[in-house]
Amino acid sequence: MVKPKLEKGLIQVYTGNGKGKTSAAFGLALRAVGNGLKVFVIQFIKGGFDYGELQVIKFLPNLELRAFGRGKFITQTPPDKEDVRLAREGFELTKKVIESGDFDVVILDEINVAMHLKLIKVDEVLDLIRNKPKHVELVLTGRNTPAEIVEIADLVTEMKEIKHPYALGVQPRKGIEY
Amino acid sequence: MVKPKLEKGLIQVYTGNGKGKTSAAFGLALRAVGNGLKVFVIQFIKGGFDYGELQVIKFLPNLELRAFGRGKFITQTPPDKEDVRLAREGFELTKKVIESGDFDVVILDEINVAMHLKLIKVDEVLDLIRNKPKHVELVLTGRNTPAEIVEIADLVTEMKEIKHPYALGVQPRKGIEY
Repeated sequence: MVKPKLEKGLIQVYTGNGKGKTSAAFGLALRAVGNGLKVFVIQFIKGGFDYGELQVIKFLPNLELRAFGRGKFITQTPPDKEDVRLAREGFELTKKVIESGDFDVVILDEINVAMHLKLIKVDEVLDLIRNKPKHVELVLTGRNTPAEIVEIADLVTEMKEIKHPYALGVQPRKGIEY
Repeated sequence: MVKPKLEKGLIQVYTGNGKGKTSAAFGLALRAVGNGLKVFVIQFIKGGFDYGELQVIKFLPNLELRAFGRGKFITQTPPDKEDVRLAREGFELTKKVIESGDFDVVILDEINVAMHLKLIKVDEVLDLIRNKPKHVELVLTGRNTPAEIVEIADLVTEMKEIKHPYALGVQPRKGIEY
């Protein structure tokens, strides 16, 4: 375990139907690594980072990331076995990363959606939160955060959509939305 | 002017009393430069970026930034002459950067607060938005966004505070909150 740099790591949640949840987590990662903290980003559901984004992220020191998802919306109930398997694999890594205490900040991108879709059990995440090394900061993102997670979190921000150009027929643009 | 990479730049606003507005803008900047877009960040009110953050940001290609502020809350009405002067200097640079068309994404961090405090006139910002080169994407952050800016924006996200640890007596932590 590295020498902890945060006295007490908090549980942060970025949720809601608005834009900026994953971006806020990445902005937070940027500041953290800038201040010498070690950051691990684990992405659920989504199919990973685009090539351009990866080219930049890999320049950053002390930032690791892994993606576990197929990058498409999961609408099927019950979810496809492959989606369950990937989420499980991501969660096993999450446990190792957190329990090791080697990272000051662990970002679990879209894990709220993975819980909502029952790819990961809420109770497992609650256990992980309760038993984490004290200094580790956790950042959970995604819509539809289960109530028990909001309850246990220290800081919860809802990104609320006030106005969105997709409603006007604007398509997602490479470099901006993805 | 560089060859425009975005067909049509939109006006994005991140506002509200919750955490994550500036982080979302920086996360967006990270993705944009990762995709070969050129980004300029101009920060109002705040006193600039901390040393650690700057060390990382300067590794990123195609990202420039300048801060115009003294880094303390402005509560005085009318505001101090020095605050007005700094905001004016920042806005003059903003106009040059946008009108040059050389940057695909221009982030105006805390400009909403600068307008709210009347350091910058809302009408000036509206003029700038109406006359900007078509391909330039603008990102405006900060609480208390004037209604006319919300009206002209394409995408508005409100960061809403659901739960905040400062209420529990937790102080801002270096590397996480600043």
